[in-house]
Amino acid sequence: MTAQLIESVFLPNFNSSALHAMEDAADFKVAGAHLAISTDSYVIKPLLFDGGDIGSLSVYGTINDLCMRLAQPLCLSAAFILEEGFPLKELEVIIQSAQNACLEAGVEIVAADTKVVNKGAGDGVYITTTGIGLITVEHPPSASRAQPGDAIIVSGDVGRHGMSILCRREGIELETDLKSDSACLKEITQQIAALDADVHCLRDLTRGGLSSALNELAESSSVGIEIGEHDVPLVPAVKASCELLGLDPLHVACEGRFVAIVSENESIAVLEAMRANELGQGAAIIGKVVAEHKGIVVMQSTVGGRRILDKLSGDQLPRIC
Amino acid sequence: MTAQLIESVFLPNFNSSALHAMEDAADFKVAGAHLAISTDSYVIKPLLFDGGDIGSLSVYGTINDLCMRLAQPLCLSAAFILEEGFPLKELEVIIQSAQNACLEAGVEIVAADTKVVNKGAGDGVYITTTGIGLITVEHPPSASRAQPGDAIIVSGDVGRHGMSILCRREGIELETDLKSDSACLKEITQQIAALDADVHCLRDLTRGGLSSALNELAESSSVGIEIGEHDVPLVPAVKASCELLGLDPLHVACEGRFVAIVSENESIAVLEAMRANELGQGAAIIGKVVAEHKGIVVMQSTVGGRRILDKLSGDQLPRIC
Repeated sequence: MTAQLIESVFLPNFNSSALHAMEDAADFKVAGAHLAISTDSYVIKPLLFDGGDIGSLSVYGTINDLCMRLAQPLCLSAAFILEEGFPLKELEVIIQSAQNACLEAGVEIVAADTKVVNKGAGDGVYITTTGIGLITVEHPPSASRAQPGDAIIVSGDVGRHGMSILCRREGIELETDLKSDSACLKEITQQIAALDADVHCLRDLTRGGLSSALNELAESSSVGIEIGEHDVPLVPAVKASCELLGLDPLHVACEGRFVAIVSENESIAVLEAMRANELGQGAAIIGKVVAEHKGIVVMQSTVGGRRILDKLSGDQLPRIC
Repeated sequence: MTAQLIESVFLPNFNSSALHAMEDAADFKVAGAHLAISTDSYVIKPLLFDGGDIGSLSVYGTINDLCMRLAQPLCLSAAFILEEGFPLKELEVIIQSAQNACLEAGVEIVAADTKVVNKGAGDGVYITTTGIGLITVEHPPSASRAQPGDAIIVSGDVGRHGMSILCRREGIELETDLKSDSACLKEITQQIAALDADVHCLRDLTRGGLSSALNELAESSSVGIEIGEHDVPLVPAVKASCELLGLDPLHVACEGRFVAIVSENESIAVLEAMRANELGQGAAIIGKVVAEHKGIVVMQSTVGGRRILDKLSGDQLPRIC
C-alpha cells in the first residue's frame, strides 16, 4: 500500500532524481565531501518489544540505512511527536535507550524537536530520525548495481523482529524465546568496507522483509534473482509462529539483517567477513543474480517447484518498523 | 510545557553539546565542509490555512532554521506519517505545495519516508523535515553571541501566522484579511550575508513568538534585553484578534519573521538590507542588548511602565507550527 502511494503520489510530485533512485540512503556531494542522508519515521506498536524498543530502533534503523551505502555515520537528528498524557517515565526509558544506541554507534544526536499532540491524535510516541554519513568508498553500493552472475548473501536468519513484535502484540506465547534481531550494522559493514571488495548492493531487510528487498533490487538493477528456499536461514520459532498466523517469513521485517550482492569471485571473502562478526554468524549464500526474468525474483522451493516471490502486497504487518 | 520537557527529559539524557547549545540549526564539520542541520515535526491543525499549508510550511520552516545560521540550504529529507483514510486528493495538494516551496528555495527533497498509522492514531498528516545547509561565513550567527550595546531588529510585523491559523480553527471572521506570514527566508538572509557584517544572532519567531525568541537569546548569551512595546510592528487584524481572544501578540508564532542582533554601528546597514527585500519591508529596530538583568527581557510599555516579558508558559496556542 505504501509502495503504491510512493509511486503514485510522492514520486510524480517530487522532482528529485535522488528519490527516484529509491536507495536506502541518498548521496550528495558538497564542498568536496561525499555524504549520505537517510530519514525514517518509527511508528511501532508496542513501543517496547523483546530485544529492543522504539528508542534504539529509531537510531539503529536510520544508521543501518547509511551503512547500506557503506557510509560512516556522522550524526543524527531526532524529532519526537508525543501524545498528550504519555507517561514521562516511559519516555525517559525510550530516550535512554536511544542515547545508548547512539553511544554504541559512535554518533551524536545534534538536532532535535518535540511536538505534543492532543490525546487521540497520536499513539504514545512517534520518532523520526535523519542520519548523515560520510561515504569513503569510490563506488558505494547502490540498488541499481546488481549484475548477472553476482552472488546473493543474507547476513543471518530472517523475520525475528517482525514476529517478536507481532507475538507480543497478539499475546502469543511461544515455547522458545523470540527476540528481535534489531541491531546496529555499523561494525559489520565497516568490516566489509575494509575488504576493499566492490560490493554492488547492500540492502537491509526492514519493511516487507527479504522478499521486498530482493524485488526492489531486481527492479532497480533490471536483473532477475533466483534464490533457494532451503538456503534462507530461519529459526524454528519464526517458522512456527509464521505457520500459526499464516504469514510468509520472507515477508516479515528484520531490523538487523541485510543482503549483500557481490561478484561471485568476491563472494567467499565477503561471506567470511560477515561470519567473523557476531551479527553475521549465520550468514549464507542464498542465490544468484541472472540475466533472465528481469525485475522478478524466483524461488526454488524445498519440495522442488519454482515460484515467483512477490513484493509484500496489502498490509500484512502494520506498524512493526 | 515543551520547553520544560526538553530541559527535564531530553537534555539530561542526550549527551550532546550541540543540543545543549539550543541553536535553530546545529553545525558540524566534515571533510573540510562546515554544515548546518535542523529538524522539525509539523503537526498543525488545520492543515490548510490562509497563506499556506502544512506542505509549504514544513519546507520553509526547516530551511528558515538553516538560514538563521546564515547557511546556504543544500537539501531536505521529509518523512510523512499519514492517518489511515486520509484523502489522497488532499495529500496531493500538500505534496505539490511542498514541491513548489522546494523550487522556490532551490533545494531538493533527496530522502523521504512514509508511514501509515491506523485511524485515530494520527491527525491527517504529520510531516517531519530535516535540512542540511552549507555555512560559508567564518563566524555564523549563534544564540550565544549577543553583546551589550547590540541593536535588536525585527524583520516585520509579528503574529500573523498564529492568528491566521487560530482564527480559521475557531471560525472567527475578521473584517480584514489575516494571512499567515509563512515564507522562505533564504533570499533575505543571503542578502544579509552578502553585507559581510558580523551578525551576532538570527532567530526566527516560531513557537512562542517574539517573546520566547528574545528570552532564549538573552539566556543563551547571558545578557539582558530591552525593547519598546510601541516599536514592535503589528497589523490591526492581529491586534484586534488577540484582544478578542485574550492573547499577547508577542507570544504568537510567526513563520516568516525573525530577529537579528548586530552591533549598533552595523545596525543601519542590516536594517536597510532587510527593508530592501519584500519580506523585510516592515523591518524595525525594536530595542537593544544590555549588560544588566541577564537572561531577562524587559519591555517599556506604551503607557510608560516597564514589565518583564516572559517566555510562553502553558500551552497558549497548541499545534500552530
